[in-house]
Amino acid sequence: MREVFQQELREIQDGLVELAELVQTAITNATAAFAGSDVALAEAVIESDENVDRLAATLDEKVTDVLARQQPVASDLRLMVSSLRMSASLERMADLAQHIAQLARYRYPEQVLPENFEKIFRKMSKIDAQMAQKIVALLRQQDRSTIVQIRDLDDDLDELHSKVFERVLSDSINPAKPEHIVDVVLASRYHERFGDHAVAIAKQMDYFLSGQPVSA
Amino acid sequence: MREVFQQELREIQDGLVELAELVQTAITNATAAFAGSDVALAEAVIESDENVDRLAATLDEKVTDVLARQQPVASDLRLMVSSLRMSASLERMADLAQHIAQLARYRYPEQVLPENFEKIFRKMSKIDAQMAQKIVALLRQQDRSTIVQIRDLDDDLDELHSKVFERVLSDSINPAKPEHIVDVVLASRYHERFGDHAVAIAKQMDYFLSGQPVSA
Repeated sequence: MREVFQQELREIQDGLVELAELVQTAITNATAAFAGSDVALAEAVIESDENVDRLAATLDEKVTDVLARQQPVASDLRLMVSSLRMSASLERMADLAQHIAQLARYRYPEQVLPENFEKIFRKMSKIDAQMAQKIVALLRQQDRSTIVQIRDLDDDLDELHSKVFERVLSDSINPAKPEHIVDVVLASRYHERFGDHAVAIAKQMDYFLSGQPVSA
Repeated sequence: MREVFQQELREIQDGLVELAELVQTAITNATAAFAGSDVALAEAVIESDENVDRLAATLDEKVTDVLARQQPVASDLRLMVSSLRMSASLERMADLAQHIAQLARYRYPEQVLPENFEKIFRKMSKIDAQMAQKIVALLRQQDRSTIVQIRDLDDDLDELHSKVFERVLSDSINPAKPEHIVDVVLASRYHERFGDHAVAIAKQMDYFLSGQPVSA
C-alpha cells in the first residue's frame, strides 16, 4: 500500500514536470511565431493547447483520486494542494502562449510589431523562456534557490512591461497605428501575466518544500 | 466528531459566500469609479483588496486543515477541491476589480473613457455586477439553473469585448488618443477575464453538485 502511494506521488510530480515542459515548448514557439510572423508555428502552438488542457485535467483527477484513497497528511498533503494550484497556473501559462500565437496569426501576413518595439519584446520573450526552463528545473530538482531566480526574472519582466507602456504613450513624433497599440498592449500584458503565474508556481513550491503558508 | 465536521463544511461554504460578496462590492464600486472618475471610490476598492486576499488565504488554510484532519471523501472531498479553485478565482476577480479602479485613479482628474465608449462599458459593468450577484446566489443556494445564467452572461460580455476592439480599430474618422486606446484595451480585457473567472466558478459548482469532471 505504502509503495503504491509513493509511486502515485512520483507520478503526480512527473505529471507536473511534463506539463511544465509543454509550457516551455509553447512559449518558445509562440514568441518565435510572434517575432517572425510564422503562421504555421502559431497554428502549431494553438493546436497544442488541447494537450495541455487534457494533461492538466488528468493530473487533477489523479490528485483528487489519491486524496480520496490515500488520505495523505503533512508534506504529502501539501503536494496534493500545491499540485492542484500549480496545474491551474501551468494551464494558464499555456493559454497565454496561445494568445501570443493568436496575435501573430491574426495579423498575418503583416508583422505584429512595429520596428521600434522589436527589441523590447525580444527581451521579454527571452525572459519568458528562461522562466519556463527554471520552472521545469524547480519541479524536477526541487532546489529552493531557483525560487529566487524566478522572482528576479519576474522583476525584469515587469520593468519591460512598464517600458512598453511608456513607449506607446511617448511615441508622439511617430504615432503608432491603433492596431499596433492594441497588439502591443495585449502582448505585453500576456507576457506580464505569464511571469506572474511562474511566480505563483514558485510560491507553491516554496509552500510545499517549507510548509510555510504562501505569502502574497 | 461528525458534528464538528459538518460545522466545518458549513464554515467553508460561508467563507466562499463572504468572499463572493466582497467581489460583488469591489466590482460594483470599481466600475462606478471608472465611469465617474471617482478617485476616492477607486482608492477604497484598491485598499479593500487586502481583505479579499486575507480571507482567501484563511479559507485555503481551513480547507487544507480539514483535508488533513477529517480526510473527507465523495461530495465532501469535491467541496474541498472546488473550494481551493473557487477561492483562487474569487481572489482573481477582486484583483481585476482593483485593476479597473487603478485605471480610474491613474488617469484622474481626466475621464478614463472617451465618450464614444461610455455606453459599451456601462453595459459591461452591468453584466459584471449581475455575474457577481449570480455567483453569490449560486454559492449560497446551490441551484444549478444559475450556472446556465452565468454562462449566458459571459457570452454577452465576450460579444461586447469584441465590439470594443472593432470600434478601436474602425475609429478612423475620429482617431482615439494612444492613452485612450491603452485604457480601453486593458479595461475591456479585465472585464472579459472577470467573466471567465465567473464561468470557472460556475463549472466548479457544477462539478461539486454533479460529481462530473469539469469540462473545458
